[in-house]
Amino acid sequence: MSATPKKNLMLFSGRAHPELAEQVAKHLDVTITPQSAYSFANGEIFVRFEESVRGCDAFVLQSHSAPINDQIMEQLIMVDALKRGSAKRITVVMPFWGYARQDKKHRGREPISARLIADMFLVAGADRILTVDLHTAQIQGFFDGPVDHLFALPVLAEYIKRTYADRELAVVSPDSGRVRLAERWAETLGGTPLAFIHKTRDPRKPNEAVANRVVGDIHGRTCVVIDDMIDTGGTVAKAVEALLNQGARDVIVAATHGVLSGPATERLANCGAREVVFTDTLPIPDEKRFPAMTVLSIAPLLAQAIHQVFDDGSVTSLFDGNA
Amino acid sequence: MSATPKKNLMLFSGRAHPELAEQVAKHLDVTITPQSAYSFANGEIFVRFEESVRGCDAFVLQSHSAPINDQIMEQLIMVDALKRGSAKRITVVMPFWGYARQDKKHRGREPISARLIADMFLVAGADRILTVDLHTAQIQGFFDGPVDHLFALPVLAEYIKRTYADRELAVVSPDSGRVRLAERWAETLGGTPLAFIHKTRDPRKPNEAVANRVVGDIHGRTCVVIDDMIDTGGTVAKAVEALLNQGARDVIVAATHGVLSGPATERLANCGAREVVFTDTLPIPDEKRFPAMTVLSIAPLLAQAIHQVFDDGSVTSLFDGNA
Amino acid sequence: MSATPKKNLMLFSGRAHPELAEQVAKHLDVTITPQSAYSFANGEIFVRFEESVRGCDAFVLQSHSAPINDQIMEQLIMVDALKRGSAKRITVVMPFWGYARQDKKHRGREPISARLIADMFLVAGADRILTVDLHTAQIQGFFDGPVDHLFALPVLAEYIKRTYADRELAVVSPDSGRVRLAERWAETLGGTPLAFIHKTRDPRKPNEAVANRVVGDIHGRTCVVIDDMIDTGGTVAKAVEALLNQGARDVIVAATHGVLSGPATERLANCGAREVVFTDTLPIPDEKRFPAMTVLSIAPLLAQAIHQVFDDGSVTSLFDGNA
Amino acid sequence: MSATPKKNLMLFSGRAHPELAEQVAKHLDVTITPQSAYSFANGEIFVRFEESVRGCDAFVLQSHSAPINDQIMEQLIMVDALKRGSAKRITVVMPFWGYARQDKKHRGREPISARLIADMFLVAGADRILTVDLHTAQIQGFFDGPVDHLFALPVLAEYIKRTYADRELAVVSPDSGRVRLAERWAETLGGTPLAFIHKTRDPRKPNEAVANRVVGDIHGRTCVVIDDMIDTGGTVAKAVEALLNQGARDVIVAATHGVLSGPATERLANCGAREVVFTDTLPIPDEKRFPAMTVLSIAPLLAQAIHQVFDDGSVTSLFDGNA
Amino acid sequence: MSATPKKNLMLFSGRAHPELAEQVAKHLDVTITPQSAYSFANGEIFVRFEESVRGCDAFVLQSHSAPINDQIMEQLIMVDALKRGSAKRITVVMPFWGYARQDKKHRGREPISARLIADMFLVAGADRILTVDLHTAQIQGFFDGPVDHLFALPVLAEYIKRTYADRELAVVSPDSGRVRLAERWAETLGGTPLAFIHKTRDPRKPNEAVANRVVGDIHGRTCVVIDDMIDTGGTVAKAVEALLNQGARDVIVAATHGVLSGPATERLANCGAREVVFTDTLPIPDEKRFPAMTVLSIAPLLAQAIHQVFDDGSVTSLFDGNA
Amino acid sequence: MSATPKKNLMLFSGRAHPELAEQVAKHLDVTITPQSAYSFANGEIFVRFEESVRGCDAFVLQSHSAPINDQIMEQLIMVDALKRGSAKRITVVMPFWGYARQDKKHRGREPISARLIADMFLVAGADRILTVDLHTAQIQGFFDGPVDHLFALPVLAEYIKRTYADRELAVVSPDSGRVRLAERWAETLGGTPLAFIHKTRDPRKPNEAVANRVVGDIHGRTCVVIDDMIDTGGTVAKAVEALLNQGARDVIVAATHGVLSGPATERLANCGAREVVFTDTLPIPDEKRFPAMTVLSIAPLLAQAIHQVFDDGSVTSLFDGNA
Repeated sequence: MSATPKKNLMLFSGRAHPELAEQVAKHLDVTITPQSAYSFANGEIFVRFEESVRGCDAFVLQSHSAPINDQIMEQLIMVDALKRGSAKRITVVMPFWGYARQDKKHRGREPISARLIADMFLVAGADRILTVDLHTAQIQGFFDGPVDHLFALPVLAEYIKRTYADRELAVVSPDSGRVRLAERWAETLGGTPLAFIHKTRDPRKPNEAVANRVVGDIHGRTCVVIDDMIDTGGTVAKAVEALLNQGARDVIVAATHGVLSGPATERLANCGAREVVFTDTLPIPDEKRFPAMTVLSIAPLLAQAIHQVFDDGSVTSLFDGNA
Repeated sequence: MSATPKKNLMLFSGRAHPELAEQVAKHLDVTITPQSAYSFANGEIFVRFEESVRGCDAFVLQSHSAPINDQIMEQLIMVDALKRGSAKRITVVMPFWGYARQDKKHRGREPISARLIADMFLVAGADRILTVDLHTAQIQGFFDGPVDHLFALPVLAEYIKRTYADRELAVVSPDSGRVRLAERWAETLGGTPLAFIHKTRDPRKPNEAVANRVVGDIHGRTCVVIDDMIDTGGTVAKAVEALLNQGARDVIVAATHGVLSGPATERLANCGAREVVFTDTLPIPDEKRFPAMTVLSIAPLLAQAIHQVFDDGSVTSLFDGNA
Repeated sequence: MSATPKKNLMLFSGRAHPELAEQVAKHLDVTITPQSAYSFANGEIFVRFEESVRGCDAFVLQSHSAPINDQIMEQLIMVDALKRGSAKRITVVMPFWGYARQDKKHRGREPISARLIADMFLVAGADRILTVDLHTAQIQGFFDGPVDHLFALPVLAEYIKRTYADRELAVVSPDSGRVRLAERWAETLGGTPLAFIHKTRDPRKPNEAVANRVVGDIHGRTCVVIDDMIDTGGTVAKAVEALLNQGARDVIVAATHGVLSGPATERLANCGAREVVFTDTLPIPDEKRFPAMTVLSIAPLLAQAIHQVFDDGSVTSLFDGNA
Repeated sequence: MSATPKKNLMLFSGRAHPELAEQVAKHLDVTITPQSAYSFANGEIFVRFEESVRGCDAFVLQSHSAPINDQIMEQLIMVDALKRGSAKRITVVMPFWGYARQDKKHRGREPISARLIADMFLVAGADRILTVDLHTAQIQGFFDGPVDHLFALPVLAEYIKRTYADRELAVVSPDSGRVRLAERWAETLGGTPLAFIHKTRDPRKPNEAVANRVVGDIHGRTCVVIDDMIDTGGTVAKAVEALLNQGARDVIVAATHGVLSGPATERLANCGAREVVFTDTLPIPDEKRFPAMTVLSIAPLLAQAIHQVFDDGSVTSLFDGNA
Repeated sequence: MSATPKKNLMLFSGRAHPELAEQVAKHLDVTITPQSAYSFANGEIFVRFEESVRGCDAFVLQSHSAPINDQIMEQLIMVDALKRGSAKRITVVMPFWGYARQDKKHRGREPISARLIADMFLVAGADRILTVDLHTAQIQGFFDGPVDHLFALPVLAEYIKRTYADRELAVVSPDSGRVRLAERWAETLGGTPLAFIHKTRDPRKPNEAVANRVVGDIHGRTCVVIDDMIDTGGTVAKAVEALLNQGARDVIVAATHGVLSGPATERLANCGAREVVFTDTLPIPDEKRFPAMTVLSIAPLLAQAIHQVFDDGSVTSLFDGNA
Repeated sequence: MSATPKKNLMLFSGRAHPELAEQVAKHLDVTITPQSAYSFANGEIFVRFEESVRGCDAFVLQSHSAPINDQIMEQLIMVDALKRGSAKRITVVMPFWGYARQDKKHRGREPISARLIADMFLVAGADRILTVDLHTAQIQGFFDGPVDHLFALPVLAEYIKRTYADRELAVVSPDSGRVRLAERWAETLGGTPLAFIHKTRDPRKPNEAVANRVVGDIHGRTCVVIDDMIDTGGTVAKAVEALLNQGARDVIVAATHGVLSGPATERLANCGAREVVFTDTLPIPDEKRFPAMTVLSIAPLLAQAIHQVFDDGSVTSLFDGNA
């Protein structure tokens, strides 16, 4: 018995960030597959799809936002249900890769949780991962399969360029670990100066607090402080203050992932930054927003990438050969 | 270079149920290995051990209580850290196996989350699992390695026998799925009668609610309604009511795992049961307790089993060859 | 070089139950792929396919009947040959899952052979399993991949309903472990009463044999004793006797799998049951049949399911969303 | 809690060849671990160990004799039970590796069953394999772990040398595939001449039967026809006849594994060989024996190897560095 | 969103043997996918494909010629890049399987490197292997997946038959390990006589060198010395000499793989052979060639096999059912 | 049969850097296990151990120096031989992790070769890895097992501090990607200033070469340019020049791994650096040395770590809790 096979894209969404899923669905011109998903009183999550998933090319979108372990587990359970329901291929779409900061043992006897995440999705049945701006690009190598790693930098930088076309910009890394990223930003913005914040402890005054020294010349410039994610906002807020203290004209903050835990909103709103720009890889509810915050949509990029993956096109070409 | 190896038992505890861990440690006469464990603002969990774990025989105790996904993830992360920290052998002690109820596809397009749990611990680095009263014994087979499956029945039944020595008992399964367990109870209690609650929908009155019919003769007896776990308490409370309505002298409820979500405490306290007995495989905080609730300690059993595992003794012998 | 792929269903049959394979082939309108299969004098089995299997969607049908280890090994060897012969996808069709009763350690130091079966097929190269009425539904979770679990209950119950339309029926589980299944039957038959047989040992007469007590009211009713499989028939025959002794009008036995070892036929023929109904998931040779035995064909159901799997349709829909 | 670990050798035996197991146990001065092992009426095998196996160094002995699939399955099930019963290390002792002849695809669309055997034991939980005289030495590489490959050649050749010390010997391979083995024999026997039997089909007489030509000079010599195993005995019997026809003084047959299926005993007894020598890697029941057959015990070699494995000694040294 | 899938064959070539890749491409009528491949100064190899490989059916051709570890690593790295670049299926084409001679432990404490090669390609992401004339056919079983094993014998034998149509041929194995292969040649050439070279050490003259005795009658015949590969040429050159000394009319050498290390060319050119025939599975540079050497192209066979694999045709049929 | 187990450390060395292995052996007071290791003419590597390795705790030391693919393959083959020879535990000691720079896809369609290395050692049989100063610490997470990651920084920094005790130091990263490492150096050296070299392309002069701008104030200071490895030396040499041009008093270069390919020695000798300091994780032959080069021994650190691993001690404690 012979037949010509069909490819069938189905989009699935966990409960973490339904707005993003809807935007992605709209850009793809598909509907999100209906499902029953609920949490039992003790927190156990249950999912069942309302339509047959047999043979489909499944894309399972979930933002790893707080409460992050629930979101991750829900996505894992969806992957398991797809595997057992005979989906043909399962792509895990995690715009923000949870636990990405725990990508190495900083000291002995620590976990490498970002690898654990990769292995858990593998064992649940994921064939591939699609993600945005990993904390470190090496995390791609934690997964034993294809990882499509998208960059939000073009989206963010394009916005900055357009909005601050007339300024003398400088790109600033908020600590010593993001200087390479800052350099990539500087190139994208057209060769701006570069600086970073160096946290020092004065060896002669042992009980004194850490000082934030700006290394690089930013005097009179509009500084763009960049990062992949902002969690509690402490490092960035101090960077902004240090820059203003040392003669920056003004400061813009740009980051892909707005984790925005605890005091983040207050710190960012009050640190003196002129504007703070995020994408919506993570949901940013109204109560975490403030007037100087701008949130750019990542949905068009995700939709394009999903379409390329479905269509055996090229994701790399979305980034001029760089992804 | 030659040496005689040493075996070194180390006990680790997640943050779900520290009292149980302390009781187990006391029975084993060891101390819980000190560790730093905390949750970031977005819910990400971090763990680091304060002492070297190299070469140890590690027992990692965590109750899968609410918020259950956090507790599971913490235990997974501990296992990962032990693997990467060169523990020699890692035994996951989960007194209650989370997601055990999702042990099959009840209908199509569902996950089998209990298997997913087993696989996640395997991929994190677990060598073996030690657990108590699985929802179904088949779950042992979900793990590719040794599972020591302990029974709380002797602990619970011994208490019932001692407390209600003078009564005419009957054992009752609260639904059709636990009759086999009820039979084992009946044997342990010395051959008591057996009954179960049959939920029926009267076919002639299609819109009417379900009726709970008692199948088996329990008239004038002290009924012991048994179950492996009680979550929201609805099924059990209705069983108690049905039994009292149909002539039971009084009713005792006995279950291993007190999940006790949402309205459980209120339902149990008010359903008419004379006594409700649990073990402490899950933490039962004071606000969930009520006067007729008795909580028996599972720690001695866990400690004995851990000791047998460490010492290459026999866990089966703890249960007269039945575990 | 580009081409449009073709899907090509190929059906393979081991030597255990060729009649069933032929019936399935007929319902699918395909031919069974010709193969050389023979056993060497020492029992080693050899298989070679007579046609190219490259790129095919293979369905390998084998009943796990006696001599069961030969049947299982033959199917494993066929799967290995398909994997090495470049079949695109391999679905193992086992209408009866061998060793399903050994699905847990009943006591210590036992195997879990049903899991071993799953793992052996996985390592041989199986992508998926299609099976009928597992001894316990949890066995689905033993396989790391999709399991399509078909139910014979509609086939059997439909026959009972049609044949005994005018009777007052009751559904009876022959022991305490099948009450849940009996409840599902009772629902399907339209809300009949429910009972089960409780084996008791009188504690005051220690040397006396076990008594079979009927729990539930079956007086004057036509009892349908149900089970997933009948092996030597002892439990069921005693259940029939107990029911007749306690006032049942008459008794019908219905089970999916007719293992029918040793004295089974004699016991069933003589136990007093009015009719005994099986499906043909296992071959039932003429010498094991008797006048009151009815064998219903499972082939239409298997063929429908295979067609849905091949066609990326829905198997769940064959059972109103329940498979 | 610290302790000094103990190593504990436990020997287990399937039901295929209890005499061999007892001999091995005697040489090791251990007792075979008592177990319940029986076959259900439909052929399903059940095994339970009567003693705790926790932490032991397990050696599981089973000859893969007819009915071979039962013997293999029993050994697999024993390995599964040992894994789940927490044995520390599991060595599968298979004096004859079942399905070893199916070690490659002789033609397309065939299985490689010898690899399947290796993988099934791996997935069941085997850590290592101990075997004797593989059909081809490459089979060692089918197992992902240590394989101790013992040679019976010293045992057999020592017997031949002692018994036929005064003869002019020649070593003969019964076909073109064992010439390398024959060469090893010739070296061991002290540099004897070498020959092999070449099966030819006369191209000018297409319908005529195959002729067995002796290649090499064996005139007036006592020929030792060697092989790793003798199954139905056809090839060897024809080789003996061809040798006698072409002037051999007399012929001795020597092989490690006496599979001896079907007509083997009759053929060997009547082919004209002066003596036929086997080891007892496989059971050879009385009814398969005949006066000119000699069976040498492999138990001392197995016991020595097991002892070296347990004691971290050297198996290689048992064979002057060649194993 | 639905679509009809496309299959897309892409051919990739490492840097070991570009001429062969070009010939294969020509026969397939495809172009080799452009890539950047270079070696860093310390020997690390880097590869990047210049075109999207997403969804393609990739065939990665690399000859395992000297420097062999570089060639193997380059191919492994290409497979890894294809896996991570989302190729749909990856077929490793290794006309010569490196390390094939280390296919067993010849003595204790040795590796089985041929299995290691199989496992490394598996872990890198290979789905299947296509190779020519393995040193031993058992090596197929080292890979957990389909291996298409092509035979060069028809190509070589056809050439010999055509070129030496008028001679009385004999086929000779250069040692005791290739007699089976020689027999297959003899059949293909139409039933010629067979002989092999037996290396003996005279036991009475312990310090004397090894003698090469010809076993079988080759007097006055044109001997075809066959082998799967010729490395340093020592064994073959001595075989040629022994044959000429013992009355062969003349000698032709035929082997699939011309490894041709060190003194091979000189030995072969001067050993007295009338002609030496290879295929070009390995590159044979001009400086290793000599007038009596003939190199036949393996490209048509590789191209046909690749086409059958891509097209779900039959590779076995290329060899009359024998591959 | 019972016994007390022994642990037995055995040290193995590939042929890449025998001096380092001898130094490590001397510090451990063990001898390197004798082995036969040679390369065939076509580059295939063969290894056999001269002593039994059964049950040993094996440490396999190999530097991944040029020709790097040969060194890696030799180490893989040694691991395979140890696995098959029944070593109890295998620790791969790679002082420099080959292909560490290819730790991510820098652009699309690239391999992640550093992960491939990890997986190849895993599949060969490695239980654990011991390495020094990974290019990025995330590479630890590429291996599914324990990685002991040693730091050479204390060794190098201690030397710098002692030798340049009287200077005003500044730490300089030679590019934007090592600023975090430079910060760690600055802390270790007691809070020195920090700078990095920023490569810029003047956007107004598109065809002009890249300029190296020093970001940070280094005027009048002795600059320590640090890196994990130096390959061809281009980046570092330009950094030294830029620092001297912009007013550094003098410049010292310090790096863990002296890859030193091609023009590296000449560049370093002539770039104006006062001193260039390496460890001997890689062999630095005499012809690559020059007067201002200092090579510190890594052997004491490796020996300490191996001893801790063997003895179940703490490797973390060697680095004050940071490893």
